[in-house]
Amino acid sequence: MDRNDVLAGFRARFRLPDDENVVYLDGNSLGPLPASVPMRMREAVEVEWGRSLVRGWNDAGWIDLPARAAGKIARLIGAPADSVAVCDSTSVNLFKVLAAALSLRPERKVVITDVANFPTDLYVADGLARLLDRGYEIKPVQFDQIEAAIDDTVAAFMLTEVDYRTGRMHDMGAMTAHAHACGALAIWDLAHSAGAFPVDLTGARADFAIGCGYKYLNGGPGAPAFLFVAEKHLPEIAPAIAGWMGHLEPFAFSPGFVPADGIARMTSGTPPILSLVAFDAALDAFDGVDLASLRVKSQQLCDYFIAAVEANCEGLELATPRDAGVRGSQVSFRHPEGYAIVQALIARGVIGDFRAPDIMRFGFAPLYLRFADIHHAAEQIGDVIKTGSWDEPRFKQKAKVT
Amino acid sequence: MDRNDVLAGFRARFRLPDDENVVYLDGNSLGPLPASVPMRMREAVEVEWGRSLVRGWNDAGWIDLPARAAGKIARLIGAPADSVAVCDSTSVNLFKVLAAALSLRPERKVVITDVANFPTDLYVADGLARLLDRGYEIKPVQFDQIEAAIDDTVAAFMLTEVDYRTGRMHDMGAMTAHAHACGALAIWDLAHSAGAFPVDLTGARADFAIGCGYKYLNGGPGAPAFLFVAEKHLPEIAPAIAGWMGHLEPFAFSPGFVPADGIARMTSGTPPILSLVAFDAALDAFDGVDLASLRVKSQQLCDYFIAAVEANCEGLELATPRDAGVRGSQVSFRHPEGYAIVQALIARGVIGDFRAPDIMRFGFAPLYLRFADIHHAAEQIGDVIKTGSWDEPRFKQKAKVT
Repeated sequence: MDRNDVLAGFRARFRLPDDENVVYLDGNSLGPLPASVPMRMREAVEVEWGRSLVRGWNDAGWIDLPARAAGKIARLIGAPADSVAVCDSTSVNLFKVLAAALSLRPERKVVITDVANFPTDLYVADGLARLLDRGYEIKPVQFDQIEAAIDDTVAAFMLTEVDYRTGRMHDMGAMTAHAHACGALAIWDLAHSAGAFPVDLTGARADFAIGCGYKYLNGGPGAPAFLFVAEKHLPEIAPAIAGWMGHLEPFAFSPGFVPADGIARMTSGTPPILSLVAFDAALDAFDGVDLASLRVKSQQLCDYFIAAVEANCEGLELATPRDAGVRGSQVSFRHPEGYAIVQALIARGVIGDFRAPDIMRFGFAPLYLRFADIHHAAEQIGDVIKTGSWDEPRFKQKAKVT
Repeated sequence: MDRNDVLAGFRARFRLPDDENVVYLDGNSLGPLPASVPMRMREAVEVEWGRSLVRGWNDAGWIDLPARAAGKIARLIGAPADSVAVCDSTSVNLFKVLAAALSLRPERKVVITDVANFPTDLYVADGLARLLDRGYEIKPVQFDQIEAAIDDTVAAFMLTEVDYRTGRMHDMGAMTAHAHACGALAIWDLAHSAGAFPVDLTGARADFAIGCGYKYLNGGPGAPAFLFVAEKHLPEIAPAIAGWMGHLEPFAFSPGFVPADGIARMTSGTPPILSLVAFDAALDAFDGVDLASLRVKSQQLCDYFIAAVEANCEGLELATPRDAGVRGSQVSFRHPEGYAIVQALIARGVIGDFRAPDIMRFGFAPLYLRFADIHHAAEQIGDVIKTGSWDEPRFKQKAKVT
């Protein structure tokens, strides 16, 4: 399978640990280091900052960096380049797009979300509702009841396309169409989508989207996030966090806010250039990647992994849909001792992660994973479970970051 | 004067351009590269990210990085370490602290600010007022009328301690005391204060503060910003942007938001680690610096510069207070052709900046500037003006970032 892998050559675009026993199945938490980043970062720190000093904003093109990175992301999520901005964190961006969506539907007070949505999305929405204090109701409902919950009282839904625990996928096109039929707006969180498989925001007619830079986009720890606003909504949106980067003329230093014409109006403060340099360089790993092939390989990797794990061990319950069509690029298994098992695997170089209460989560990034890696990982999982080698105090001790 | 400079040794903590003709008087826009940053950044990218991968959050201590950087800033601004957070941008942080201040004074609808405040502060405040839509009035008044404008209808004032154009300083203690006497809250923007001279937020009994990482703190282009909340207010504040980093237990992934006990509740999304690594390393340049000496040298540098420029050239109008006691660490001169003159100076290595309509701005960072540099800079200014060498098309062409 590795010999026939059309994406095999892209592995060389990453600097993976030298140890051949390391299999990195946590690129859905933090993508690995792209090979293009170290030199680019040295140049940015030592030459651009060190020698150009403040002139780097013009001479090194720092001022254009957010738009440059956004253009690269746009292709991966099926959006026009000028409808994507790279800025802030996913949480802050959700705050901004949700505020924008609510302002477009002033008479409606309900926001529908998934009870299993990533917690920060729920926190941000509740926080915004509390801040606005106008009777908004953020309504988390079960996956299968979301469509029924969207009616003509609903201002917007906010859904993460791929569930971070189970990998289950919402149908972006169908759910968006249903919302529109009810006069509601669609907000998609692409945290576990962008870079893992092709997303088609334009085709789905999504209204807003946000996403994360440091998972499948490999932008580095805490990389800046991105947001998308459908072109037709932009002119109507007064940004909630109106900062100088969102001004039509940031360097006119005029006292009144005039929003930029385009997507820049959704940005606010000065962007973190060094993190952005890494992110922008990292995105070049997707240069020339055929996105359909990305999806095919992702599904093959996941299928292979499920089959191999199930052949190697007992006592694990598959938490991810078996149907590749409704699954993101991850596979999760439930086990009551999942935390310790994941730690024991990490000690052997098979790096996945754990999500409470019992989810062992493995992410599959098609650009750098080989089928041989998957085979090795499944063998190790089998061995750890068969031998019970996870049953040691050192594997049960909770780390600060899980 | 350089021989008697007790801070002279700290210059070695910076990597300044090799060219001896470069005099960097724009550290109030972007501080230069501290010598500790390049190696630290290489390690973070190539070893921590490259080899530890996601384990870097625990193994390399990324999760503690914001608090570590905040502790270093706390000393510079006279605040307890656990009342300072490093996160987001200055604009986003102002949004958060202003929302918090307004929530503490729900019956009051007026916010006082300086007409000459940095534009993004005005934009953010107006944007928040528009978002809340509860009749808030953001009232910009002239410097000398601010005190009179603060009465018992005022929820809070937000002032930048040092005017970014003129370098004129507000009296933090007196203004805060006056606000408190009226039942109003004090929000200070320390963009042009932190790292330039000692700030005493505790002594002034300030309620909130925000500040910038990339000016006098030398944190790198677009470095994360900081915020301060007085301890007594924290328990009463429900953060406006409630993200997972502000949760009491971010990795419990529980659906309901429970704010962290301390200042962490004011953070929101995942922090940009690479930019933070640079910022945290940069702050070590202040290790062992006596802050009183910082202020003394800053005042001497500015006094020397004013005297030398005025001795060397005519046609410049001092825009900065002559009284060092009410002046930040910058000197500004007005000239109708200020833009071109600044560009001509930059071409000669004397790097300041221009602020519309006619302000030539020069910042004085006591850790790396020598009196000989100031002497050279003043000579160059005199020469550019005397010879009219600024009068060339290339110096009049506006750059994207001014």
